[in-house]
Amino acid sequence: MSDLILHQDPRSGNCYKIALTAALLGIPLTIRDYDIMKGETRTPDFLADVNGNGRIPVLQIGDKFLPESNAACWYLAQGSPLVPDDRFQQADVLRWMFFEQYNHEPNVATLRFWLRFIGQDKLSDAQQAQIPAKRAAGDAALKLMDGHLARNDWFVGEGATLADIALFAYTHVCEQGSFALDDYPAVRRWLARMAAQPGFVAMEQ
Amino acid sequence: MSDLILHQDPRSGNCYKIALTAALLGIPLTIRDYDIMKGETRTPDFLADVNGNGRIPVLQIGDKFLPESNAACWYLAQGSPLVPDDRFQQADVLRWMFFEQYNHEPNVATLRFWLRFIGQDKLSDAQQAQIPAKRAAGDAALKLMDGHLARNDWFVGEGATLADIALFAYTHVCEQGSFALDDYPAVRRWLARMAAQPGFVAMEQ
Repeated sequence: MSDLILHQDPRSGNCYKIALTAALLGIPLTIRDYDIMKGETRTPDFLADVNGNGRIPVLQIGDKFLPESNAACWYLAQGSPLVPDDRFQQADVLRWMFFEQYNHEPNVATLRFWLRFIGQDKLSDAQQAQIPAKRAAGDAALKLMDGHLARNDWFVGEGATLADIALFAYTHVCEQGSFALDDYPAVRRWLARMAAQPGFVAMEQ
Repeated sequence: MSDLILHQDPRSGNCYKIALTAALLGIPLTIRDYDIMKGETRTPDFLADVNGNGRIPVLQIGDKFLPESNAACWYLAQGSPLVPDDRFQQADVLRWMFFEQYNHEPNVATLRFWLRFIGQDKLSDAQQAQIPAKRAAGDAALKLMDGHLARNDWFVGEGATLADIALFAYTHVCEQGSFALDDYPAVRRWLARMAAQPGFVAMEQ
């Protein structure tokens, strides 16, 4: 058993980022599964012991807890080729990881969660009202990615980095949120490059 | 003139993070101001030359452009005490920076922008409808920070890091977005510690 424990829901792309990072680096993780649809990350024990924010993933390192998917990936990948040493490239990896959390995940991942896991007929009026804006913002994020990937094989430098892992997680299942990968041919080719990486593991869904 | 150019709107807390990081580290920046209220970051030239995402801040380093406030701070602060070398602490700094962009900024900064710079009477119906949810989520973020700061002087380790800078930017002006600092006494004490840091500069507003 690894002393690194990933507290996760396997359907979450944010959790998958960490599992994929560990797989590409050959780092074993112990997995603890929670069902977010049943509120298992909002119990008093979870809030007190794992994450007061009530969210997964959390990477547990001994008696320390690290929330935020991209921070957990960073913990695992420091010193590996997934985090470039070059000063600009390292910051540029973070540039795409912050873009992912601010412009991509709240739109692409949220629509997947609403449409695939909750179901459009069960959404609140407030959620229904947000769908057009989230679809437009998600398409804008995918378009920006496609433009970059039409000129570059990877987001930063000449190989896969955490920027690619962070953006792969929800992009490769974006059609579950009603986005059309056919609109983004350079993204589609990059998804295939990612899936061909040595050690790659697919997401459970 | 510095060869580091900050493309910014001085009223933006995201831009201020970079200016504050540079000031605490004694790094000179050349400033280029844009007025986001007049669409100056959506012109064809800006989109082509500075940031296809149409957003500021962007840190220009020679002929390279780095969007995303927290990534720009990282570029400036690598190798300084603002980015700890320790593996867990470095990831933990990023944990708070991702929390800032995901849980804090879209609520605390957005309400400030809507209420102070647009004006409540000029908001769209969709924006009006989102105010209660954004206020609740912003208060949840401030409450989580207050709980941490009741037990710790700083977000990570024994001194200020980029985690503190990222969270300071919009927290110290949160009352402009209708949040009440009196509800968060540990946050208020931490704001005073930040303002007493050598080299600290105040935000233009």
